[in-house]
Amino acid sequence: MDSRRLLLISNSTSHGSGYLEHCENHFKARLTGVRRVLFIPFALFDRDRYTNTAKGRLEEMGFALDSLHQAPDPHQAVAEAEAFFVGGGNTFRLLDTLHQLNLIPAIRKRVTQGAAYIGTSAGSNIACVSIKTTNDMPIVQPSSFNALGLVPFNINPHYLDPDPDSTHQGETREQRIREFHEENSPPVIALRESAMLHIEGHRITLHGETGARLFLKGNEPVEHQEGDRLDFLLG
Amino acid sequence: MDSRRLLLISNSTSHGSGYLEHCENHFKARLTGVRRVLFIPFALFDRDRYTNTAKGRLEEMGFALDSLHQAPDPHQAVAEAEAFFVGGGNTFRLLDTLHQLNLIPAIRKRVTQGAAYIGTSAGSNIACVSIKTTNDMPIVQPSSFNALGLVPFNINPHYLDPDPDSTHQGETREQRIREFHEENSPPVIALRESAMLHIEGHRITLHGETGARLFLKGNEPVEHQEGDRLDFLLG
Repeated sequence: MDSRRLLLISNSTSHGSGYLEHCENHFKARLTGVRRVLFIPFALFDRDRYTNTAKGRLEEMGFALDSLHQAPDPHQAVAEAEAFFVGGGNTFRLLDTLHQLNLIPAIRKRVTQGAAYIGTSAGSNIACVSIKTTNDMPIVQPSSFNALGLVPFNINPHYLDPDPDSTHQGETREQRIREFHEENSPPVIALRESAMLHIEGHRITLHGETGARLFLKGNEPVEHQEGDRLDFLLG
Repeated sequence: MDSRRLLLISNSTSHGSGYLEHCENHFKARLTGVRRVLFIPFALFDRDRYTNTAKGRLEEMGFALDSLHQAPDPHQAVAEAEAFFVGGGNTFRLLDTLHQLNLIPAIRKRVTQGAAYIGTSAGSNIACVSIKTTNDMPIVQPSSFNALGLVPFNINPHYLDPDPDSTHQGETREQRIREFHEENSPPVIALRESAMLHIEGHRITLHGETGARLFLKGNEPVEHQEGDRLDFLLG
């Protein structure tokens, strides 16, 4: 996996800014040398509309976009992709569709060969070991929760700190991640909105001024700030 | 299912009151004539501790409690149960354990025969068609998302109304339930904290002053108040 080039983003739209605005520079940096991006729209129900939104935005940044759902041969499209952009939405629907099309091994192989991978929200979840730290409702049942495994940890996107003034009795996000570690071992990096990970070979750098919270099984969570190197998460 | 006697509660503890305090009278009403309750603790990791908490509380109310995880023969315990109490926690873990023990048909059969069923949170989710409207993290993968099917609809417990002042970009609960209906047909009754459904044969009554929001596929959501009859949900 030394040639992997990933950008895993908590969210596509941050409060008070437009679609992909908070991460535009990171997007462009990750896609240096890329002309065409293969978009994976399966997290939303209306794939055509989603594709139009993403296409318009990437064209503004100077990239052409093809959508995987319009490819005559999805396996060929993946095998020839220069770069992937996997948009957010429902993580279960996204992973289920990729499993049904048997595209998980093909995407993993292409990223290993050096194709860039950019994910937002659900698209970041499926880059990881499994989707077991998604926030989404399980509206469809994938054959497996195992995901692309491009990194040996899990992400929790849209991370929310516990609200000390809340009267709500549902589990906090932190409690949910602790429950994950009652049953599973992989580290979980919880990315607040606007935060993202740049991964290049064996280097991981955290970006975004909101920072992230790292949960390791059996340990208290640890705060990380913009610019921190997290290479140790690659084992 | 004419003899079913269910109490499906959004949450076990409401803000500013103790464990099962907001629903104590409903609990007692549902368990009229019952001496021993069979507790199902599988939603939490520490089953012994959970059982002790539930046992102490039910004894205060005048009921004896046995836990299914301590039963020498779980199938026999289910077949002989006077009443079930299924506690909250992680819905995936709860359903996964019941599937692994092959107890789903046995519990359904016993409830059909007239054993009372009380669920809180995850325990209410699994009484329904499926767990596809849980709020929980998918920390383990059940063989199926199909649940007990004691009623032909789904519950969303701990329902939260969209917060107009929120800057968070994650999906609102309402958006998540709409996503459910992009892929599925069953009605979803979203129970705010403190709300609950009494079900007796073909009668459903909503209790709790916070009320509930009903989502039918293809329709705008509708508000329901304490005392409303929702028998139409039984088809």
